[in-house]
Amino acid sequence: MAQTILKLSCPDRVGLLARLTGFVAGHGGNLLEVHQFADPITRWFFARLTIDTETLDTDLEGLRKAFAPVGGELKAEWTIRDASQRKRMVILVSKADHCLSDLLGRWRSGELVAEIPLVIGNHDLLRPLVEREGIPFEHVPVTPECKAAAFAHMRNLFHKVRADVIVLARYMQILPAELCEEYHARIINIHHSFLPSFAGANPYRRAYERGVKLIGATCHYATPELDEGPIIDQEVVRVEHFHGPNDLLRLGRDCERLALARGVRYHLDDRVMIHGGRSIVFRD
Amino acid sequence: MAQTILKLSCPDRVGLLARLTGFVAGHGGNLLEVHQFADPITRWFFARLTIDTETLDTDLEGLRKAFAPVGGELKAEWTIRDASQRKRMVILVSKADHCLSDLLGRWRSGELVAEIPLVIGNHDLLRPLVEREGIPFEHVPVTPECKAAAFAHMRNLFHKVRADVIVLARYMQILPAELCEEYHARIINIHHSFLPSFAGANPYRRAYERGVKLIGATCHYATPELDEGPIIDQEVVRVEHFHGPNDLLRLGRDCERLALARGVRYHLDDRVMIHGGRSIVFRD
Amino acid sequence: MAQTILKLSCPDRVGLLARLTGFVAGHGGNLLEVHQFADPITRWFFARLTIDTETLDTDLEGLRKAFAPVGGELKAEWTIRDASQRKRMVILVSKADHCLSDLLGRWRSGELVAEIPLVIGNHDLLRPLVEREGIPFEHVPVTPECKAAAFAHMRNLFHKVRADVIVLARYMQILPAELCEEYHARIINIHHSFLPSFAGANPYRRAYERGVKLIGATCHYATPELDEGPIIDQEVVRVEHFHGPNDLLRLGRDCERLALARGVRYHLDDRVMIHGGRSIVFRD
Amino acid sequence: MAQTILKLSCPDRVGLLARLTGFVAGHGGNLLEVHQFADPITRWFFARLTIDTETLDTDLEGLRKAFAPVGGELKAEWTIRDASQRKRMVILVSKADHCLSDLLGRWRSGELVAEIPLVIGNHDLLRPLVEREGIPFEHVPVTPECKAAAFAHMRNLFHKVRADVIVLARYMQILPAELCEEYHARIINIHHSFLPSFAGANPYRRAYERGVKLIGATCHYATPELDEGPIIDQEVVRVEHFHGPNDLLRLGRDCERLALARGVRYHLDDRVMIHGGRSIVFRD
Repeated sequence: MAQTILKLSCPDRVGLLARLTGFVAGHGGNLLEVHQFADPITRWFFARLTIDTETLDTDLEGLRKAFAPVGGELKAEWTIRDASQRKRMVILVSKADHCLSDLLGRWRSGELVAEIPLVIGNHDLLRPLVEREGIPFEHVPVTPECKAAAFAHMRNLFHKVRADVIVLARYMQILPAELCEEYHARIINIHHSFLPSFAGANPYRRAYERGVKLIGATCHYATPELDEGPIIDQEVVRVEHFHGPNDLLRLGRDCERLALARGVRYHLDDRVMIHGGRSIVFRD
Repeated sequence: MAQTILKLSCPDRVGLLARLTGFVAGHGGNLLEVHQFADPITRWFFARLTIDTETLDTDLEGLRKAFAPVGGELKAEWTIRDASQRKRMVILVSKADHCLSDLLGRWRSGELVAEIPLVIGNHDLLRPLVEREGIPFEHVPVTPECKAAAFAHMRNLFHKVRADVIVLARYMQILPAELCEEYHARIINIHHSFLPSFAGANPYRRAYERGVKLIGATCHYATPELDEGPIIDQEVVRVEHFHGPNDLLRLGRDCERLALARGVRYHLDDRVMIHGGRSIVFRD
Repeated sequence: MAQTILKLSCPDRVGLLARLTGFVAGHGGNLLEVHQFADPITRWFFARLTIDTETLDTDLEGLRKAFAPVGGELKAEWTIRDASQRKRMVILVSKADHCLSDLLGRWRSGELVAEIPLVIGNHDLLRPLVEREGIPFEHVPVTPECKAAAFAHMRNLFHKVRADVIVLARYMQILPAELCEEYHARIINIHHSFLPSFAGANPYRRAYERGVKLIGATCHYATPELDEGPIIDQEVVRVEHFHGPNDLLRLGRDCERLALARGVRYHLDDRVMIHGGRSIVFRD
Repeated sequence: MAQTILKLSCPDRVGLLARLTGFVAGHGGNLLEVHQFADPITRWFFARLTIDTETLDTDLEGLRKAFAPVGGELKAEWTIRDASQRKRMVILVSKADHCLSDLLGRWRSGELVAEIPLVIGNHDLLRPLVEREGIPFEHVPVTPECKAAAFAHMRNLFHKVRADVIVLARYMQILPAELCEEYHARIINIHHSFLPSFAGANPYRRAYERGVKLIGATCHYATPELDEGPIIDQEVVRVEHFHGPNDLLRLGRDCERLALARGVRYHLDDRVMIHGGRSIVFRD
């Protein structure tokens, strides 16, 4: 069934949901799924409406035009989009393949709906995994000397393939702040700890040394402040004293796969909104 | 903040949510929390709206009167209620005290908002736990010979204290079908297994024998068909080969406490709706 | 570090662990990991000892010979094995690729240590996924008419590749009882429900209809009685009323991947023992 | 069944478990439960053996005398104890009652096996909850001015009731370093966050602001460094954007109850050992 997704955030006020649902009903639209959240602390309003496209009395462009004055009046950030339109997702990797394999498997099976025009590795190791899926792989080494040039090159590649979203699938390099800002709320990272615990390097080693009884992984948007971006999803697994650092690596990989896959899925499906460093996630 | 809760279910159709939110906005009502679910399979619609009472231009009775024609037109089941109005909850127990203690603790601290006019035990064992909270305790033994009379007596007690909801906190007797029907969707049971696994008696022993690696508990509405009523919540815990039947009892108690406490809380807060043997739970 | 694994089960008696650890110490063996379980109900004893091979005063054959009289006296089932010796694992698939992909990914990365001499599909669909890993794929269709011949052919293939273990990675056919018996405790299945709930066909559909609040998957040994074999591991995920049957399929796949991967790993690593329909799993 | 518990830690070496189990077998002891862990990183050995007391050829004192030379030779820390001997547990509280209620409920039902000679509150609020269980309650206010005197008084009380273990059940004061040292590995605290995240004050508020998707609680031994002591157990619960700070408080209480109850239980049952800031927990 063709679906149209209206996503919106704006200052809260009385009658907002009536306004939105009234607008949809006014165009004959049948609502398939409705999520809304009025944050009582920030006084901000968030909504995501899925509409049966067939029932609408106008096309996508018509709907956008009709909604523009409403959105303007509400001082809203909003998008109206055909759910079948695929976002263009570029994946960045280093040497570890577990997140990449998992994402590609879910993409191949249709669980993740996206175009993947390009995978970039700072090592050349995972090229075969990528190319055998018919996806181009670009090797862009990042050394201390060439860092600026490398990221400039990568930025050109993002532009060239018209990337909508960039996924860091255990990409072990820190992106420059300008890139994080240019792709604000569109770069998804998986951090291999239960943030804010063990931000930074070697989280499993530090988790082992601290003797925690649960480890985890955090899927979040990348921001210029390392490991501080809005969290989309987290996953944990119970560990015991007999799990050494290598066991934590192994067990943690399952957390990383799951948290990243869910976070990417929510993003691709327009289910995530950001406000004040926190994320609103309308899960399905 | 005083809150008014509108709860509704009816056949799905275009414009329902616009209708409801328009109605609330038409009375000046500010929506604090909105949940809705349009079931694509049964084509049924469910909603729960929390309104800031202060912003309404009419009182509870006025709002009900105003809504009556809308509800009628939609062929809806609906209630409009002051959130601070406490439901009257009767608790039934046998010998095990862990669920009762847990419920009383949450009630005392204000986490569960209800009146508890009466606790009934088919054993007299838990009387002190109840009376020391200032709650009347009634001992109604249930033997094969006196069963009919005992339940008739209990029914009278329910009527006398004007029970809104009956909680079976590890009450080890099966209620008569008539009672289940009279209090349809208002009798909450905790079953000590992860239903539909191990319905019936001795679930932990059978879980042990089957060698399952997770055990659980199920909070559900009681229906004339034993252990078949709509599920409100479930909880599980991981077990291992070294956990004997007594360990399962111990670990299971934590599942029972949690699942029952959540289920009761959702019910008291008008967050549960039933349709076709399944429950819709608008969690908070 | 080269490791030797001694796995043993026998009737319980006083001094068993002293006997085993004394035997190892008598050969200079340094114990790296010790698991034991004395079942108080069945009065049966289970142990798994990992020994630093370098510290032993004899080779594998010598150790086995030295242990034989001990094992005989204890009426034990036992194996002594070089941990680096890879089991030969045949995987059976139908059309769904998520478990296969996951297993292959873990195998490629070294998380699952095994030989995979063959993958068999009753459909030809997953051939490319398999062959691109350099693993032979055999298409053995199973229709009602050809069933006996098909399984006879598969049995020949198992023999030919000297299969140690057979993994049913969402293989949608029921194996003949004789095969289950020939490969007793060596056929690992993933059932897409939280057994014993929803044994048999269409578990997600039935879970949806029953309105459960958690769904799961079960990794177990196949026995002639369908879905009744000893459980190795289980995994669950919380679901809500808005998850339709297709959502349960999607969420359940993550449970299936995890439960199967762990179960296979435990088996390959000699961490599972069976007694009386239950499994003892010495997790790592 | 009367049980004797041997608990030991010492530098690792070849033949340790053979030595211990040989010692027990030499006294006719039937092992009911054996846990051991040889830490490959610190090269330290930990063991806990439960022996059927009836099968031993000597009494507790005799067994201790016989073991003393072994323990000395191994440079071990060790205890041999009758499992039915109850530890004397003092509980410290402030105003929140959920952990106290939970502990008392588990104690009353026999799930926690201990003497509770005293509960101390820095507020007088929870006195009725305690006294109605027949347990003395002492109100020891702690103000900035009287802090030293208050803790000196409490220390005297600990001595007077011969406290074996002190449980901080949401006690909102920081114990002096000397007290932490005097009762090293015998003061159990529950911190209302998933440590090391949100150590210090107001963890739920900070968790809300950071937008984490899971919150938790940590049961740990108190050390002079605040919130840095060895972790015994942790519990987490999933939260969403619609959970405000008060919801986190509510959901967190369930984590606190569970993590504290398990941690206390493991400690009372001699299942916890500490080494280098980490804890070894032989769970049951």
